[in-house]
Amino acid sequence: MRPSPISATVDFEADGVQHGFLRLPYSRDDSAWGSVMIPITVVKNGVGPTALFTGGNHGDEYEGPIALFDLARRLDAAEVQGRVIIVPAMNYPAFLGGTRTSPIDKGNMNRSFPGRPDGMVTEKIADYFQRVLLPLADIVLDFHSGGKTLDFLPFCAAHILHDKEQEASAFDFVRAFGAPFSMKMLEIDAVGMYDTAAEEMGKIFITTELGGGGSATAKSAAIAKRGAMNVLRHAGIIKGAIDAQPTQWLDMPSDDCFAFAEDGGLVEFLVDLGEAVESGSVIARIHPIGRTGAEPIEVQANMAGMLVARHFPGLIKAGDCCAVLAVAV
Amino acid sequence: MRPSPISATVDFEADGVQHGFLRLPYSRDDSAWGSVMIPITVVKNGVGPTALFTGGNHGDEYEGPIALFDLARRLDAAEVQGRVIIVPAMNYPAFLGGTRTSPIDKGNMNRSFPGRPDGMVTEKIADYFQRVLLPLADIVLDFHSGGKTLDFLPFCAAHILHDKEQEASAFDFVRAFGAPFSMKMLEIDAVGMYDTAAEEMGKIFITTELGGGGSATAKSAAIAKRGAMNVLRHAGIIKGAIDAQPTQWLDMPSDDCFAFAEDGGLVEFLVDLGEAVESGSVIARIHPIGRTGAEPIEVQANMAGMLVARHFPGLIKAGDCCAVLAVAV
Amino acid sequence: MRPSPISATVDFEADGVQHGFLRLPYSRDDSAWGSVMIPITVVKNGVGPTALFTGGNHGDEYEGPIALFDLARRLDAAEVQGRVIIVPAMNYPAFLGGTRTSPIDKGNMNRSFPGRPDGMVTEKIADYFQRVLLPLADIVLDFHSGGKTLDFLPFCAAHILHDKEQEASAFDFVRAFGAPFSMKMLEIDAVGMYDTAAEEMGKIFITTELGGGGSATAKSAAIAKRGAMNVLRHAGIIKGAIDAQPTQWLDMPSDDCFAFAEDGGLVEFLVDLGEAVESGSVIARIHPIGRTGAEPIEVQANMAGMLVARHFPGLIKAGDCCAVLAVAV
Amino acid sequence: MRPSPISATVDFEADGVQHGFLRLPYSRDDSAWGSVMIPITVVKNGVGPTALFTGGNHGDEYEGPIALFDLARRLDAAEVQGRVIIVPAMNYPAFLGGTRTSPIDKGNMNRSFPGRPDGMVTEKIADYFQRVLLPLADIVLDFHSGGKTLDFLPFCAAHILHDKEQEASAFDFVRAFGAPFSMKMLEIDAVGMYDTAAEEMGKIFITTELGGGGSATAKSAAIAKRGAMNVLRHAGIIKGAIDAQPTQWLDMPSDDCFAFAEDGGLVEFLVDLGEAVESGSVIARIHPIGRTGAEPIEVQANMAGMLVARHFPGLIKAGDCCAVLAVAV
Amino acid sequence: MRPSPISATVDFEADGVQHGFLRLPYSRDDSAWGSVMIPITVVKNGVGPTALFTGGNHGDEYEGPIALFDLARRLDAAEVQGRVIIVPAMNYPAFLGGTRTSPIDKGNMNRSFPGRPDGMVTEKIADYFQRVLLPLADIVLDFHSGGKTLDFLPFCAAHILHDKEQEASAFDFVRAFGAPFSMKMLEIDAVGMYDTAAEEMGKIFITTELGGGGSATAKSAAIAKRGAMNVLRHAGIIKGAIDAQPTQWLDMPSDDCFAFAEDGGLVEFLVDLGEAVESGSVIARIHPIGRTGAEPIEVQANMAGMLVARHFPGLIKAGDCCAVLAVAV
Amino acid sequence: MRPSPISATVDFEADGVQHGFLRLPYSRDDSAWGSVMIPITVVKNGVGPTALFTGGNHGDEYEGPIALFDLARRLDAAEVQGRVIIVPAMNYPAFLGGTRTSPIDKGNMNRSFPGRPDGMVTEKIADYFQRVLLPLADIVLDFHSGGKTLDFLPFCAAHILHDKEQEASAFDFVRAFGAPFSMKMLEIDAVGMYDTAAEEMGKIFITTELGGGGSATAKSAAIAKRGAMNVLRHAGIIKGAIDAQPTQWLDMPSDDCFAFAEDGGLVEFLVDLGEAVESGSVIARIHPIGRTGAEPIEVQANMAGMLVARHFPGLIKAGDCCAVLAVAV
Repeated sequence: MRPSPISATVDFEADGVQHGFLRLPYSRDDSAWGSVMIPITVVKNGVGPTALFTGGNHGDEYEGPIALFDLARRLDAAEVQGRVIIVPAMNYPAFLGGTRTSPIDKGNMNRSFPGRPDGMVTEKIADYFQRVLLPLADIVLDFHSGGKTLDFLPFCAAHILHDKEQEASAFDFVRAFGAPFSMKMLEIDAVGMYDTAAEEMGKIFITTELGGGGSATAKSAAIAKRGAMNVLRHAGIIKGAIDAQPTQWLDMPSDDCFAFAEDGGLVEFLVDLGEAVESGSVIARIHPIGRTGAEPIEVQANMAGMLVARHFPGLIKAGDCCAVLAVAV
Repeated sequence: MRPSPISATVDFEADGVQHGFLRLPYSRDDSAWGSVMIPITVVKNGVGPTALFTGGNHGDEYEGPIALFDLARRLDAAEVQGRVIIVPAMNYPAFLGGTRTSPIDKGNMNRSFPGRPDGMVTEKIADYFQRVLLPLADIVLDFHSGGKTLDFLPFCAAHILHDKEQEASAFDFVRAFGAPFSMKMLEIDAVGMYDTAAEEMGKIFITTELGGGGSATAKSAAIAKRGAMNVLRHAGIIKGAIDAQPTQWLDMPSDDCFAFAEDGGLVEFLVDLGEAVESGSVIARIHPIGRTGAEPIEVQANMAGMLVARHFPGLIKAGDCCAVLAVAV
Repeated sequence: MRPSPISATVDFEADGVQHGFLRLPYSRDDSAWGSVMIPITVVKNGVGPTALFTGGNHGDEYEGPIALFDLARRLDAAEVQGRVIIVPAMNYPAFLGGTRTSPIDKGNMNRSFPGRPDGMVTEKIADYFQRVLLPLADIVLDFHSGGKTLDFLPFCAAHILHDKEQEASAFDFVRAFGAPFSMKMLEIDAVGMYDTAAEEMGKIFITTELGGGGSATAKSAAIAKRGAMNVLRHAGIIKGAIDAQPTQWLDMPSDDCFAFAEDGGLVEFLVDLGEAVESGSVIARIHPIGRTGAEPIEVQANMAGMLVARHFPGLIKAGDCCAVLAVAV
Repeated sequence: MRPSPISATVDFEADGVQHGFLRLPYSRDDSAWGSVMIPITVVKNGVGPTALFTGGNHGDEYEGPIALFDLARRLDAAEVQGRVIIVPAMNYPAFLGGTRTSPIDKGNMNRSFPGRPDGMVTEKIADYFQRVLLPLADIVLDFHSGGKTLDFLPFCAAHILHDKEQEASAFDFVRAFGAPFSMKMLEIDAVGMYDTAAEEMGKIFITTELGGGGSATAKSAAIAKRGAMNVLRHAGIIKGAIDAQPTQWLDMPSDDCFAFAEDGGLVEFLVDLGEAVESGSVIARIHPIGRTGAEPIEVQANMAGMLVARHFPGLIKAGDCCAVLAVAV
Repeated sequence: MRPSPISATVDFEADGVQHGFLRLPYSRDDSAWGSVMIPITVVKNGVGPTALFTGGNHGDEYEGPIALFDLARRLDAAEVQGRVIIVPAMNYPAFLGGTRTSPIDKGNMNRSFPGRPDGMVTEKIADYFQRVLLPLADIVLDFHSGGKTLDFLPFCAAHILHDKEQEASAFDFVRAFGAPFSMKMLEIDAVGMYDTAAEEMGKIFITTELGGGGSATAKSAAIAKRGAMNVLRHAGIIKGAIDAQPTQWLDMPSDDCFAFAEDGGLVEFLVDLGEAVESGSVIARIHPIGRTGAEPIEVQANMAGMLVARHFPGLIKAGDCCAVLAVAV
Repeated sequence: MRPSPISATVDFEADGVQHGFLRLPYSRDDSAWGSVMIPITVVKNGVGPTALFTGGNHGDEYEGPIALFDLARRLDAAEVQGRVIIVPAMNYPAFLGGTRTSPIDKGNMNRSFPGRPDGMVTEKIADYFQRVLLPLADIVLDFHSGGKTLDFLPFCAAHILHDKEQEASAFDFVRAFGAPFSMKMLEIDAVGMYDTAAEEMGKIFITTELGGGGSATAKSAAIAKRGAMNVLRHAGIIKGAIDAQPTQWLDMPSDDCFAFAEDGGLVEFLVDLGEAVESGSVIARIHPIGRTGAEPIEVQANMAGMLVARHFPGLIKAGDCCAVLAVAV
């Protein structure tokens, strides 16, 4: 396979703090010899594990980028034992555009792995993570939130894995992260995910969903910032006690967790995030908007549980996921 | 002045419940003899005051449309004494598009009054309200929220007016509405507003800001639904006691309430809606996103107060309003 | 009023055949010192009446442009007594784009009169016709068809006017034109129309609707070509007998002629152009397209008559004119 | 190969009438967890052959969707012996947009077979038909028309095949369909076609071209509706005699059938659909539109025949197919 | 007339160097309470004349912005006697977009005077210059170049005016500026120009054309930087001798200076900027691009002169200005 | 591999001058049976070598198309011994659009080889050159310039190759071409290039960079026209002496030749094309445009050399190539 077209302006083996770029040549109508410049920070000191922290896998999710632009600026090489690689905005074109996918090629970063060195821009980034950055890492933390079209209760999560030792280590990191909620996820269709790429290399991989709507609050950003530090402490890369927090463990046992809309319209939720629903109860109503006086469609719960995610925009389209339930464990 | 090109399929003088349309002819490339069809409901019974309720003045604000599509469907003529005119989505093209302004002509409905019968689509709608609907009304309730780019504490509001009797009546309706917060607004630049158009005719006019981000929660929609009923009760159009709620009155004393961004970037709020700030304290930081390691810009409070509104999207642009403070009265 | 910015490369007073342009300066991002170039032909010989023939008033109607590009190329000055001014594509930017309105400013030429010399491009063209070309004319023939979104039975038409002599002369020209159908039109809202501009100057004005769908057939183009020649013959500008054709006179007595859609969907016509309907019978059904198994909405005839125009595209939107009926006279 | 991401909300093995969806997950900027919802109807009763009926393979062709939304709503399980699977709008995103290809990925459904489960949206739909729906079918009827840019004489057609028994059965179905014209097609470049996918599995496959221009008439829709019923009758799935119609069989013997434009301009047809032309005669003229007075380009017939299809829009571009001839057999 | 909605963050009466903004509230879909922020610098010291320097009147012309961002940063209040107001990018939205006109409203700043406080964004900026900034100024220097679609010989210019004293003063400033060429311009159609607005107030107004193509060279930027300093010296605002340069005075005597294209195509110039042409000689050829082998159209000189400006892009459209000639005086 | 879908209307084996098309079927929303028509000229006479001349590999580079439309029209079969195949606009959709890449599929022709017969439009063109045209050729001349976003000193170039005989022949052709500068290029990443495709077949391949900015001057077009004739003379295809010109040979020894921007802004060059710089000297400054008074970023030379290419537009983006240096040999 041909080498990645991406070149880094930082040296991953050098001690100290380096702020630089992953430069990805991208020839196009408005720049014949242009490039995508993805900011990256490497903080290294001596021997120790490597943590790879990423935000902006989807470009409209903000807790991760806030925590990581902040961490990259604050982290002192002297307080580190090992290495921290920080990419606050992994799908940088998407992050610049404030969109889930890349405006360049509509690439969904989290369905683009393992990527291709001669593919589209998003695939080239994925390929660089696959072949260059992931192999350097011991522990990988990838921040997500709901983005502009979903809203989530704040949780940190890891996957159910075949390798139970790897799985246990990951859940230890989830506990250390200290989000208000913690989730055990069973991925049905893991093809193309960054998560899978990391896990298949035997890396410890944890992720989050910390809010949504394309915004971050002081509260949700604080969870991300504290979680990132806790992960570095748990990994032994920075010293000091974990800032321990209570967490509620959740589980999504089956497809009944999801309720999809079969009709578009104006969505009215009858339940808010974190509230409990009975099986069969109405979670939301979808008002037809073509005329007044028409009956709304009801979206019902397929099981009892807690509302952990919901459609965010005021209008909903047929096929949109309307609500997601989980159960406490 | 030529007559409005809009025709109503409902009869404003007929008793009973009517669901119909305001039909606005709109010739364009994809429909030579097309029209904009704005849903409207009229519920009338005997003699009594007329309430005119509107949502979707800005197309990405959802508490109003939810409350009004719901009210239009539920309201029984027999329980009414007088008349209720309901237009859940005043700037209907904007509402359909999920945008603040009309995708047809970029018209901001609330800066388009008194409108023009031979103007753009948004101006034609404004003109119809100015010359047909407002003159029919005694009390006008226009629902707003923050839309996709702002988020607000939920409040109902009326304007400081020269006519103190008119003003007092309006604030009585604000109190009746029963939002968690209530605001006395002094409009500096009232040109083009629907509010002004109504007030200048001597109508009682109240408005709201009930959340934002282009979404509505079960909680915020419930405030709107209860408020609408309370207004009808206070007006004597429907019978029964007001569902009274505690409210905190707020005031925005000067331009120091507003903090604007002079630089774009990734915005990190240090304070959430409803929290107090000291004068000079940092409300938010704006991280430059071109590279890691750069110092964020700080947005400071120009006065002490409570954060009542904030920029919503994760990215902010130079010139955007970042934060709004108010003081309790 | 300032003079028109348009300059003609032809001399309206010179004998002979001239092919040239109306040059309208139009500064824009892709041409700082650019112009819109509207093709024009003037054929003049000695003394006699002036006919002004226009097509492309709406840019997606083709019988007129076909007849007029053809006529402009064929007409010999020697066979003319008087003057023929031919503008095959009046709203030239719309014609180039194949759209009803101008892609530059969304201007609907037939709602832009009397225009403005300092307005948008479409208004500048209207102003030039208003102040320069119409005053030169005795008889004006403006070709229309249904365009991309409507389809018509082929007819030539003139308006019911207060000046009965002017009206009678116009209907004589309609008869001379010789379309399969002929229509007496009562314009309700004549503001902004080219028709009105011409009629108010006392000019004889006739127009057509000759098909539609954004296409022309050999048959419909032949009607336009024959009609143009017949008008020149009837005006005495060219010699020879009118190619007389049988015609059916039609009338549109009231607003009951029109049937609008209140819901969007897939439109299924049960009647074709030229067929008769009873009052109350179903002209078309609109199938909801969000799911199978739903009942279609019926569009009914508000009066008995013949289907003379219909919505053309397979999908229909709420507010679109679905069907137009007329009665034989 | 990984399984299709599409899930059906109907059970293909259950008796009765079911209206549901093929749900295709489609994550994008405006819906992180969104789906494409393709309406489907299954009508099954006991044992018997399966007919698979599709419209909207190209999204701007309307006779098929009209006939199939109608059939799906009307068909009673009791009158069926076997199974009818109806997908009125196969490339549903294209159908919603009123475009030939999918607005999502520009996919031409009829060049996307056999599809890919991990490809673009159009390829995912093709893959589902390839691996799930086609294997269920015995007889496949796929409705086409000319769409917005072509117009056709109405015909039903099947392909010349190597398997002469399969071919004969198909032509029997064409005859049963009962369109005014019937066509024997020899496909030169069959790669990617739905037709080919079905035929290679040994299915009976018939198709149609029933008009065009992006519209349907009462007449053309009636041909589609009658044809669908006749096919079900000929297959023995519903009882009763075929509504037999006279048909004219046509053949397209060589590439001389096609006439392409080498220059863009305003197209004037001299011949209409169904009319005969001599070899070398002028079918159409293309008027240059940059100026008046220029000579049109002539498009000539390369053989004698009947005009069976033509370019529809009033403007033509270099490279567009202008006219198609066929010969009666 | 209502006051300007624009507020300045600088104090025009305060001594010292101030860098700030003209803040123009601009509510829109992506920022409900957003603003356009136009950078401005004021350098003031004691009593003396006021110079108002502007670039980016058209957003794709770069010598002015380069000279003015540079000057704003370098200028020391101590070296100034009087006041210098610098707006490097007058039509800031256009400058940000790299376009001649504003991407917000397509406003051409130099055709938008005197502007309107309640108009579009470009008109609001013009109004602020008309009513606030121009009245403060004694000498106005507005930088232009050809932008993306024209290229010019570098010249400084002023207008022929009725007030011959005002005119003479302006030409003295043109001479002081010291561009390689100097032009006496007779404006035919001065409506809407910034130039006219300033001149009608009796201000000294000079302008430039310093290159084009949407780029600036080291050489052309140096002319702008030197010219700006020379103007401040000539005005007595900064001390020291003018950096005098030889200049060639030019005149554009009539409309024969301009040659327009009547046909689009690939333009081949036979003469370069600064070269002489005879009357009737071929300046450029336009190759038709639809096919090879076609004859090019020739663009001829209507008079003898020197090529001072030309169409820049490789393709030309009908109506574009192809070439401009001037004569030495 | 399936055959190319492209058909040529010219016969490559016939003597004489033929002007025709490469017709590439391209079905799309606005033309169901449309095609891309790429103009081509073949001039052949008897036996001799074949030269393949191409322009418009990138659609915004004009010296090549000017020289080749001109050559195609002028070349007389009688003066040729052998064959000249001329494709003035290889990526014809890009050329029509005036863009580097194809507006149809964003394909960069020079990264699309060897292409695919069932790929996107750009890949289909590449495949036709790969499998049909290149095999016919002995000498290939592909014209490039800088396009809209780069500007170059005019040079002709060939690659350093493993086959030194092939390399020497190519440099002989470069010398014969006679551009002011001549370049020896070492391609680092040759994947997908037309150059590589030709060279790997053993063809003599030369290319050019002759200016840029999306324009051509009389001077730069003359270099292209003379060079094309010189190449034909050197190949022995047309008779007569080479019009010999002095040339300066250049070399780009390492990656230090390139200077990229890490920040966007307004670019001010301190050096022009052809001027010498010292190592470490400032080539350009990038002014931040968000506010006045900010320090510009400096772009420095990484080595001593001559400026041979530079970013063209006035604004620069992070990641854009700002400057390219070369050394004289």
